[in-house]
Amino acid sequence: MTDERKTDILQRLKSVEGHVRGIGRMVEEEAYCIDVVNQILAIQRALKKVSSRMLDQHLHHCVTNAIQGTGNSQKEQILGELIQVFEASSKA
Amino acid sequence: MTDERKTDILQRLKSVEGHVRGIGRMVEEEAYCIDVVNQILAIQRALKKVSSRMLDQHLHHCVTNAIQGTGNSQKEQILGELIQVFEASSKA
Amino acid sequence: MTDERKTDILQRLKSVEGHVRGIGRMVEEEAYCIDVVNQILAIQRALKKVSSRMLDQHLHHCVTNAIQGTGNSQKEQILGELIQVFEASSKA
Amino acid sequence: MTDERKTDILQRLKSVEGHVRGIGRMVEEEAYCIDVVNQILAIQRALKKVSSRMLDQHLHHCVTNAIQGTGNSQKEQILGELIQVFEASSKA
Repeated sequence: MTDERKTDILQRLKSVEGHVRGIGRMVEEEAYCIDVVNQILAIQRALKKVSSRMLDQHLHHCVTNAIQGTGNSQKEQILGELIQVFEASSKA
Repeated sequence: MTDERKTDILQRLKSVEGHVRGIGRMVEEEAYCIDVVNQILAIQRALKKVSSRMLDQHLHHCVTNAIQGTGNSQKEQILGELIQVFEASSKA
Repeated sequence: MTDERKTDILQRLKSVEGHVRGIGRMVEEEAYCIDVVNQILAIQRALKKVSSRMLDQHLHHCVTNAIQGTGNSQKEQILGELIQVFEASSKA
Repeated sequence: MTDERKTDILQRLKSVEGHVRGIGRMVEEEAYCIDVVNQILAIQRALKKVSSRMLDQHLHHCVTNAIQGTGNSQKEQILGELIQVFEASSKA
């Protein structure tokens, strides 16, 4: 992973972590339920962006290498993983 | 909110926060992309449980009170919010 | 349900049905996979709108009546159903 | 696409089409809202399976060919499309 991309992803995760902590404070202070739920939805959107960056990285490196490589079973494994992640993501 | 429910939700959020920090470490140590994405999916499932508990609370208290109350505009507002959260959740 | 709302929902379902048939034709004619997937995503968005209209109807009638009624077990059942639908929707 | 896979996908779409028609009848007969919403959720799960089969096909053919090919811009395009479909799917 390039340093730039790594820094970007780590910053996004730091921001999600702070956001989750902030939601904890909202719950402690008995904030309005709908406001809490909306903040959780915002975190979920932020996490999806992180997943999407990770997958972009994965497609350009691991998947590309596996497909250009000679091992058919490795290629099958890596494509199977992608399908699984796709299915799990559209359910998560 | 009962103390019991509040404690449950706060513990879930603490656990999510630690989980996000753990993913940061995975990214720093250049873990396999698919493993990172799968951990993010696990966090999203945990956050959905928190949302679901908050909504359960909301339905039993705010929504119930608004519907049993006399204000029609307040009832409309609270049902409108529910529909919005439902729509946003199925997209988040 | 008002006639107007019923007609609106039935028209949306008719349109989804035609859309699904159209996707069948795309598959028969070996259309580009990504185009097929994007059409399926469009159908899923259309179906979510139908669900959202049905839930709006449900909240304004069945849920309102149950909460204003005297039966506590009926109220619990109807709120439990809502939470289940919320959880299933954010996974579907 | 192999004939077998094509037949499988076309049968799934036919079944979804019939299912949507069945939901129209439920709405006409004023079935319970929650039952209608649950049937719509079942259709959405069925459609996700179709998307997943299409993507599997896509990864094994178009994506594999593009990555093994010489055109870098074509490779970028096909990976960009995959990321877009991934993002749209986790929102749809």
